[in-house]
Amino acid sequence: MTTASRSESTDLPVRTPALIPTLGGKWYVEDSIFAAEQEHLFEQMWFCAVRSADLARPGQFRRVQVGRESVLIVRGRDGALRAFLNICRHRGAMLCTEDEGQVKRNLRCPYHAWTYGLDGKLVTAPNMSALKDAEGEDIDRVAYGLVPVALREWLGYAWVCLADEPPSFESEVIGAVTERLGTATAIDAYDIDNLKVGRRVVYDVAANWKLIVENFMECYHCATIHPELTEVLPEFADGLAAQVFVGHGAEFGPEVAGFTVDGSPGFERLPGVSPEQDRRYYAITIRPTVFVNLVPDHIIFHRMYPLAADRTVVECDWLYTGDVVAGGRDVSHSVELFHRVNEQDFAACERTQPTMSSRAYRNGGVLVPAEHHIAEFHEWLLARIGDMR
Amino acid sequence: MTTASRSESTDLPVRTPALIPTLGGKWYVEDSIFAAEQEHLFEQMWFCAVRSADLARPGQFRRVQVGRESVLIVRGRDGALRAFLNICRHRGAMLCTEDEGQVKRNLRCPYHAWTYGLDGKLVTAPNMSALKDAEGEDIDRVAYGLVPVALREWLGYAWVCLADEPPSFESEVIGAVTERLGTATAIDAYDIDNLKVGRRVVYDVAANWKLIVENFMECYHCATIHPELTEVLPEFADGLAAQVFVGHGAEFGPEVAGFTVDGSPGFERLPGVSPEQDRRYYAITIRPTVFVNLVPDHIIFHRMYPLAADRTVVECDWLYTGDVVAGGRDVSHSVELFHRVNEQDFAACERTQPTMSSRAYRNGGVLVPAEHHIAEFHEWLLARIGDMR
Amino acid sequence: MTTASRSESTDLPVRTPALIPTLGGKWYVEDSIFAAEQEHLFEQMWFCAVRSADLARPGQFRRVQVGRESVLIVRGRDGALRAFLNICRHRGAMLCTEDEGQVKRNLRCPYHAWTYGLDGKLVTAPNMSALKDAEGEDIDRVAYGLVPVALREWLGYAWVCLADEPPSFESEVIGAVTERLGTATAIDAYDIDNLKVGRRVVYDVAANWKLIVENFMECYHCATIHPELTEVLPEFADGLAAQVFVGHGAEFGPEVAGFTVDGSPGFERLPGVSPEQDRRYYAITIRPTVFVNLVPDHIIFHRMYPLAADRTVVECDWLYTGDVVAGGRDVSHSVELFHRVNEQDFAACERTQPTMSSRAYRNGGVLVPAEHHIAEFHEWLLARIGDMR
Repeated sequence: MTTASRSESTDLPVRTPALIPTLGGKWYVEDSIFAAEQEHLFEQMWFCAVRSADLARPGQFRRVQVGRESVLIVRGRDGALRAFLNICRHRGAMLCTEDEGQVKRNLRCPYHAWTYGLDGKLVTAPNMSALKDAEGEDIDRVAYGLVPVALREWLGYAWVCLADEPPSFESEVIGAVTERLGTATAIDAYDIDNLKVGRRVVYDVAANWKLIVENFMECYHCATIHPELTEVLPEFADGLAAQVFVGHGAEFGPEVAGFTVDGSPGFERLPGVSPEQDRRYYAITIRPTVFVNLVPDHIIFHRMYPLAADRTVVECDWLYTGDVVAGGRDVSHSVELFHRVNEQDFAACERTQPTMSSRAYRNGGVLVPAEHHIAEFHEWLLARIGDMR
Repeated sequence: MTTASRSESTDLPVRTPALIPTLGGKWYVEDSIFAAEQEHLFEQMWFCAVRSADLARPGQFRRVQVGRESVLIVRGRDGALRAFLNICRHRGAMLCTEDEGQVKRNLRCPYHAWTYGLDGKLVTAPNMSALKDAEGEDIDRVAYGLVPVALREWLGYAWVCLADEPPSFESEVIGAVTERLGTATAIDAYDIDNLKVGRRVVYDVAANWKLIVENFMECYHCATIHPELTEVLPEFADGLAAQVFVGHGAEFGPEVAGFTVDGSPGFERLPGVSPEQDRRYYAITIRPTVFVNLVPDHIIFHRMYPLAADRTVVECDWLYTGDVVAGGRDVSHSVELFHRVNEQDFAACERTQPTMSSRAYRNGGVLVPAEHHIAEFHEWLLARIGDMR
Repeated sequence: MTTASRSESTDLPVRTPALIPTLGGKWYVEDSIFAAEQEHLFEQMWFCAVRSADLARPGQFRRVQVGRESVLIVRGRDGALRAFLNICRHRGAMLCTEDEGQVKRNLRCPYHAWTYGLDGKLVTAPNMSALKDAEGEDIDRVAYGLVPVALREWLGYAWVCLADEPPSFESEVIGAVTERLGTATAIDAYDIDNLKVGRRVVYDVAANWKLIVENFMECYHCATIHPELTEVLPEFADGLAAQVFVGHGAEFGPEVAGFTVDGSPGFERLPGVSPEQDRRYYAITIRPTVFVNLVPDHIIFHRMYPLAADRTVVECDWLYTGDVVAGGRDVSHSVELFHRVNEQDFAACERTQPTMSSRAYRNGGVLVPAEHHIAEFHEWLLARIGDMR
């Protein structure tokens, strides 16, 4: 956290000025910086890729862009999810060109028919018997198998990591939630693993991913652009980011029945949710690209896919109990609330992106007290990708 | 001006060869050169931005691209026009995303509601009382106000300058007109300040702005591509650029009644226009981006907005007396003439742009005698942005 | 050809491993490499530009992109084809902006009316008498004529070369055919000069030109993606590239009547085709950008125009005797066969292009024995444009 320099020749306590600097504009526009983020963040950290339940059957796959790589996530015949680089080891054709699909038994390259099992091993290839290595031995079916990518499942999502030595999932991912909620178990109450997707909306945002993170981290803008949200969560009108206070959830207004666009009742609260968690909204940022929003009866789960310095695709899931989804109950009132919030936030980010290259933003803007915690995000970023200022 | 090297061992006068070189092709295509022009020309010189009368009411604004900056020009409550960088000082959101519009009292950032007066001062912000500087003082409403941009009005247009120390408007802008017309007062006869816009056409030209300038400066092409214009101004068929001769205006043909597409009569001549100015056409180039065309009964005023090395938007106004415009008189015959000229010229520029990268144009082409004065434009450019040849 | 390193301390023969490396992915994606290919290949070698018969009449022209240059090929009044850079020597306007057309007597620049004969000489210009050189002499009509480009005709096509000193057409172009067919005369049997275009299809392929060459050179993919072709040429199902064996043509299947999509009869065999050539398919690669396919009754002739690292336009002609074309006989069965092959091949190349930038392809993929001859293409390329590995 940035602190003011100690006043000279006095014993007054150090005071943080009300306005502290943001990152300069170049961090949001330069291709070289985005490339460094791809290399040092998205291709090094755990990256939330897909909802596991989307790949229910063996052979079901989904293709996801992680940093500069196309990653294939596929359900094996043994029921396990695995991730591979989406490229044939022979001449480099892309194995799957659809964003999602289903294969029968194997992943077969449509160019020369090199064929891989769902575990990534090379199963067969035309004239396989002629493919000997320099010593005349049969080629190694693992060495010439698909390039594996580390994968972990948590909260019902598959998280992948392209690093040669992935960092600790417990400290990086789970730790971020613990740090926010105060305990490692608070999130278990929501049983997110077993919820179902009631609605999914994909947003294509013409803004740098960090503008979206910074927007999510603060609520100084809530009174200005989120009328529906501040109606449901009156304390948001004060502009304080609930995320700053460990374990704090913003309380529903007294007249509000549920986390819905009109304050009308939602669904029964999730079975494990405690009375302390009831009628409260918790927002969690899991770096680099995930936001989790907890309310008593559902979860709003954001995954970002940064595609360029000025383009980010955001996939947002609304998760409910199986009863709600299978029962065909009307989720539109709860979906509409955060869908509006998303549209309001992304519009704000999109109007901020174009000015990042202005001379007036060369040294950035300022963070007011309600935004000071964003400075820690900036420091984290600089430490991760090298201080290029 | 390029001159021939003195003939050795004779006393013959120095002779300029008939063909002298142009700039090489890279000056029209390379991004680095366009960036240098943005920095050293468009962001340093006086740049003609908007017609003042387009912003008649307090709170009316227009957004203009000047070099790399989005500039906001707005009419104040005191009736004065002012220009600012179009960016909020807090977190950098673009204040106005529409090209033109009207605010009531203030410019309010739609992201966090920082609010600026029409004079640019910070008026208020959410939790303003908490915004203290490092010494605990209230923040400076000017220092955190909008970034001002120098603005001058002349000929009914607002000219802005992004330079820290703007050059002399009198010598750079007014001086260009004086140099062309021979006196500082000749242009006053047209009373351009008080004319009204009878028609505006915006052209999106796929060519470097310098090709458009060079085209405007010479008339060697007139016989080839401007049949209507040479009909009205027969001397243009000879290919001599009227611009070269100080104070000279091209005379209408004897059968021509007015500066119209078919030579039919125009309107009454402007009240101040002298008999010497009557039945004559004067073209003036005001660097870097303005052309002014004077005829007895109206003015054709071009402003360029160079957007990329190979793209220039040109906004062209046809200006008439208030009587003509308010009276709803038919301006189509006079508009049609120069609209055709514009389309003919810009088509020529667009067919020249793609070949600028050819090996055959590495060292440029040649200027014939009727074009020799363009060399001075090239020398001016090189002196301004550094001789990168 | 890549060879295995000799086994240490034994006298065993050197053995080539079954899998040898391809080029790394960067060779297919980097702009700097494509620029080197433009400079050292397309602008140095003989480049097949147009079918000569497409320009039958004097004044008929076609415009072609060769490397970074727009080249104009035009039939002269003397009946000869000539090629020039498509740019006026005066101020650089593009002479012809249509891909093809017809002029009456001369090539006249539409900007300032500099006018060139079909032989490229400057014929006239406005105020030509004023255009004197530094010595006061009339300007040189050749020196200020269009910039000529070397041109040779062979197989009924015009091949151009932008090099200052073109390489030997005989060894580079004709030599490639001789090397493949075993004799310099085998191709004469098809009398390609005198065939007519029965169908032309232009494909815009989102892939690097080298992927298209490599694809054409091998048949390891044939069983997977070319069902119709392997039906007609059963030996292609084995995956061996017919191109490797000098003089070998792949034989039609016993049930196959003609080289058609359904094996139905084609046309009478070309008059000069020998019994040994009958019922056989010969594929020839003429570097850098031409493929010739010979079958008894027609020719399929591919010309590539590499436009960017990831984009190549391919123009494919189906050539038949004048009798077939003039007689309006139905060529659709024979066209359909190779049109499908083209679409199948280009789809494979397009799915390979995006993964060339993957970390998994940084050092490339592998060539199986049936593809080993492609390594020679890679070595040729590296020798030509410098080993940038």
